[in-house]
Amino acid sequence: MSDPTREPTPTDAPVLTPAPETPRHARDVIFGSQQGRIQERLNDLDPDLGRYIQEFAYDTVYDRPGLDLKSKELIACALLVSLGSPPELRTHIRGAMNAGATEAEVRGALMMCVPYLGFPRTVAAFEVLRQHLNR
Amino acid sequence: MSDPTREPTPTDAPVLTPAPETPRHARDVIFGSQQGRIQERLNDLDPDLGRYIQEFAYDTVYDRPGLDLKSKELIACALLVSLGSPPELRTHIRGAMNAGATEAEVRGALMMCVPYLGFPRTVAAFEVLRQHLNR
Amino acid sequence: MSDPTREPTPTDAPVLTPAPETPRHARDVIFGSQQGRIQERLNDLDPDLGRYIQEFAYDTVYDRPGLDLKSKELIACALLVSLGSPPELRTHIRGAMNAGATEAEVRGALMMCVPYLGFPRTVAAFEVLRQHLNR
Amino acid sequence: MSDPTREPTPTDAPVLTPAPETPRHARDVIFGSQQGRIQERLNDLDPDLGRYIQEFAYDTVYDRPGLDLKSKELIACALLVSLGSPPELRTHIRGAMNAGATEAEVRGALMMCVPYLGFPRTVAAFEVLRQHLNR
Amino acid sequence: MSDPTREPTPTDAPVLTPAPETPRHARDVIFGSQQGRIQERLNDLDPDLGRYIQEFAYDTVYDRPGLDLKSKELIACALLVSLGSPPELRTHIRGAMNAGATEAEVRGALMMCVPYLGFPRTVAAFEVLRQHLNR
Amino acid sequence: MSDPTREPTPTDAPVLTPAPETPRHARDVIFGSQQGRIQERLNDLDPDLGRYIQEFAYDTVYDRPGLDLKSKELIACALLVSLGSPPELRTHIRGAMNAGATEAEVRGALMMCVPYLGFPRTVAAFEVLRQHLNR
Repeated sequence: MSDPTREPTPTDAPVLTPAPETPRHARDVIFGSQQGRIQERLNDLDPDLGRYIQEFAYDTVYDRPGLDLKSKELIACALLVSLGSPPELRTHIRGAMNAGATEAEVRGALMMCVPYLGFPRTVAAFEVLRQHLNR
Repeated sequence: MSDPTREPTPTDAPVLTPAPETPRHARDVIFGSQQGRIQERLNDLDPDLGRYIQEFAYDTVYDRPGLDLKSKELIACALLVSLGSPPELRTHIRGAMNAGATEAEVRGALMMCVPYLGFPRTVAAFEVLRQHLNR
Repeated sequence: MSDPTREPTPTDAPVLTPAPETPRHARDVIFGSQQGRIQERLNDLDPDLGRYIQEFAYDTVYDRPGLDLKSKELIACALLVSLGSPPELRTHIRGAMNAGATEAEVRGALMMCVPYLGFPRTVAAFEVLRQHLNR
Repeated sequence: MSDPTREPTPTDAPVLTPAPETPRHARDVIFGSQQGRIQERLNDLDPDLGRYIQEFAYDTVYDRPGLDLKSKELIACALLVSLGSPPELRTHIRGAMNAGATEAEVRGALMMCVPYLGFPRTVAAFEVLRQHLNR
Repeated sequence: MSDPTREPTPTDAPVLTPAPETPRHARDVIFGSQQGRIQERLNDLDPDLGRYIQEFAYDTVYDRPGLDLKSKELIACALLVSLGSPPELRTHIRGAMNAGATEAEVRGALMMCVPYLGFPRTVAAFEVLRQHLNR
Repeated sequence: MSDPTREPTPTDAPVLTPAPETPRHARDVIFGSQQGRIQERLNDLDPDLGRYIQEFAYDTVYDRPGLDLKSKELIACALLVSLGSPPELRTHIRGAMNAGATEAEVRGALMMCVPYLGFPRTVAAFEVLRQHLNR
């Protein structure tokens, strides 16, 4: 993956580019400039919950090697379709694209839900995709 | 539909080998030598159901371009974890590997279920993986 | 509640036809000669649970007028497909047929699960149907 | 698709019986005058998704013989309760009534969800019914 | 049932302590001053549904001895997280607190959903808790 | 509860008894003498998965203060009913009892699933309870 997200608004751009040997966290790519806001919202809900999501879900499970981040995010999208969770689905559609997925690949991931989950969940997912694309 | 499954039993073997430029169906890759047996079992359950799975699920949704087959199968595995469907999960773990996924990638796909679905479903999925690897 | 379950004679044929003014309970039709055994098993699990199922689920919800019993049982089958509950599904496939559903109607009810729930749950349901038909 | 939506006369009886060779699609009955709008919305989400729903879900699964359309729609309503999908539930409550179900039959179908799915999903379904009746 | 809901005085404190032989219903504690409004809404949806919820869910299952009401309500909260039912979750978060649960105990009950159901359902639950606390 | 866990296999017995002020882990109480075997099985499935369950699910979420362990385990039982996961349900029925729950309290926790999840899941749960009690 060459240059995935480049999400550099002036406020949260580091003064110095990190040294190339510094591994980037999956959450940096997935959330981009939204990361601070999202993490703050989770911490407000419950500090432990926010910590579990950052340290366990992202810095442990997501950062685990063995599968590339784009595939992880396409899988996350499909799992969120199974849960019927529109807000998180939108976050991870954006995350999949930030990790390099094309619109066609996201459509392909959502379409895989038809044979496994049926049409209603899949239609709801494509509505979230449309909202994301029309943003 | 002209040349459907290439099951090589005497009765339904085509007279001529298909030309190499004939695109392979996703189901040829996923099921490999099990395809005839699997399709026969589905037809026995209900001929319409068997036909819907072959013609719609596989020859339409799976063969739709836009996402590579390996990614489709890793997504299928995750969705089957969400459904708690061990027999199909085993079929599609094998399918993902037939489509080029490494064991590490399959483990990575199953592990993505932890943050989205929790541990019990994921543990059940890794038990199916172990059965597949120990076959 | 005066005379709820009327344990059947060994042949399951009552010696005398019940008087026409005696309304039959849905559970008499659904369970037929299995009713005593099923209710005993539920009472063994927990007497309150057994009582809730008989008095609330069957004698209240199932015996509620407004929809015919065959339709109720076809709906029950579909809901049990959604829950992935093979033993109860088999009970209510038999119950639907006891209430007058043809095999084609049961197949039609299970097939409706394809567009709403996807293939894996539906395939599992048709396997239960086959077991019932091959009993 | 030749003549899709043909709004029925107030008595819902066509002035002329359709010629016997013109089979009506289930979707003509279910969607009535809304069919064009609904199909357009689905095509906008994704042309393949829209096509799969029309050609596979409706013109194949729904138009399959063996079970009457009213029963299919009552089952669809129950399955949508299991999925917690209010917008589609409303569409198929209307569809069930368009296919001949009385309000009492729709209430009976939703009530069957109590013993199988519990109260929260069923309460949500009756709220959708109330919105439909108060439209 | 003679005097079910006894609307409380504005301060929610009864003028007279109920006689010790009068057992309070679980629903009196859970719903407090909201009980009349909630029951009326359910009866409006469907009189049978309203009756089933009051007489079966509350006066039978909830009033069954063997487990204290606070534990029942914490369990109800967790089950509502599994169902993804925000309005009922809010009702039973309030109910758990009315039955004596502290905020820390409610947070603990919701947090137990992380290992069993994953993060998206749990995050949605903590959002409902925050709305309740900020009311 | 007198002395539940006593994990005395030679290999993982500490040389010195931990000082009494060392807080016990929830997993010591829940799993008792089965802990070594269970953890080994999970590590065999996938070392990362085993580690996540021990370090995150148990030593982080379960050991989090704010709610007593018995309540946590009763909630775990209810959530496992919602997932339809018999093996884990049996483990946590035993865990709830190891944490001090009476049989009546476990029955009360499972019975709470009736109004929220319906009868089929609850019946399956009481079958697991019976197997546990008849062991």
